[in-house]
Amino acid sequence: MTGQVVIAGLGPGAGDMITPQVAQAVEQATDVVGYIPYVRRIAPRHGLTLHESDNRVELDRARHALEMALQGKRVVVVSSGDPGVFAMASAVFEALEAGPPEWLDLDIQVLPGITAMLAAAAAAGAPLGHDFCAINLSDNLKPWALIEKRLRLAVEGDFAMGFYNPRSKSRPEGFARVLDVMTETCEPERIILFARAVSTPEQVLRVVRLADARPEMADMRTVVLVGSSLTRLIERPGAPIVYTPRSAPV
Amino acid sequence: MTGQVVIAGLGPGAGDMITPQVAQAVEQATDVVGYIPYVRRIAPRHGLTLHESDNRVELDRARHALEMALQGKRVVVVSSGDPGVFAMASAVFEALEAGPPEWLDLDIQVLPGITAMLAAAAAAGAPLGHDFCAINLSDNLKPWALIEKRLRLAVEGDFAMGFYNPRSKSRPEGFARVLDVMTETCEPERIILFARAVSTPEQVLRVVRLADARPEMADMRTVVLVGSSLTRLIERPGAPIVYTPRSAPV
Repeated sequence: MTGQVVIAGLGPGAGDMITPQVAQAVEQATDVVGYIPYVRRIAPRHGLTLHESDNRVELDRARHALEMALQGKRVVVVSSGDPGVFAMASAVFEALEAGPPEWLDLDIQVLPGITAMLAAAAAAGAPLGHDFCAINLSDNLKPWALIEKRLRLAVEGDFAMGFYNPRSKSRPEGFARVLDVMTETCEPERIILFARAVSTPEQVLRVVRLADARPEMADMRTVVLVGSSLTRLIERPGAPIVYTPRSAPV
Repeated sequence: MTGQVVIAGLGPGAGDMITPQVAQAVEQATDVVGYIPYVRRIAPRHGLTLHESDNRVELDRARHALEMALQGKRVVVVSSGDPGVFAMASAVFEALEAGPPEWLDLDIQVLPGITAMLAAAAAAGAPLGHDFCAINLSDNLKPWALIEKRLRLAVEGDFAMGFYNPRSKSRPEGFARVLDVMTETCEPERIILFARAVSTPEQVLRVVRLADARPEMADMRTVVLVGSSLTRLIERPGAPIVYTPRSAPV
């Protein structure tokens, strides 16, 4: 039997946002590997081995998956959201490229999932309804100067923006600097959505103006969406709707 | 009975990429509205009325959906991909904001789907594995100058990029200009993925270097992904893998 590595996205949390394609891959797996909280979303069953690993060991986890596939296992590497968006797919390909040549013959597939930014956008309306950028605010793997450069260029281009990993306990100051840059470059009425634990029972959506945004509104379970200058708020009974119109004026 | 509008994403084409959440909304609908080819993806059944409409009548379609919901119908507005990414969600909210105040009391939900850019990325590897932008290249609703400005800023920020609606019969020249700007601002080895009809039986993926890219490689069924300067190609038996590493050097 030939082994296989499937890098699959479990979506942001809700079971009914997992695509049937991903659900089937998990059903057919012999082994599931991933970061602890994501593997815990997989129901145990006879014939399936669950391999939980800690955060920040993505390359070890990727090599483990490739090694097991070489032994004939059907391995599913699980990510939250979409595996190609600040998640495991790139880590597996980094390991593949640096690994032994026999890995190149393996059957490797990536199955997309609903990424947090788009689930958050849907929950609030359509804040990303025009051109947008996705920026990972973690400076674990890139210099802070590059994050700030991209942020300034995205503001200059009037893109809507989605920020992943905005604020962790080990680096709380980065997101405060992002808010400082935005305060300097955007109007104070700019609309910001803090979306925490989207699509789970703990989901909290908070819509504020830039002038009222505070660093503590974000943590690592939060995705932050920033509107363009054209993004609008529709007030109505219950939560307001945030959306960016399809048109931009000449 | 209170009516409802659900704006749902059918994903890029494959049936097994439709989330159970969206499938259930369609099962419970009394009316489905959308652009002809998307409505044709919905199986007819007793009690469900299908309303097909032409392209470029998004606001009419949105108003029709809101009117039917006000009459107590359970209406699903279908988009390909994700409804919040260059699709129907913003059109519905534009119509809502400009419409009669009683529409504001309606139950309106957006259900995300797998957007073409992320399905194409998964099919090719992980070209969007680092910060990226999504740009709609159609200048129907925004000036060409804004598209070109955003393109130049995204290149300057070394974002990976996803281009939607790259080239139509009525405006074939825009994408040629995009390639000209990229030729002027990027290295000739820059990796470009042309992904046509992703996840359907007609899927074609073509990976080329910028120097070899031609306008005719894209049409309206194509999403074009452009790597950052760090995006890499892994040659192997069968199709190559395209991926962007998670790290950027200092």
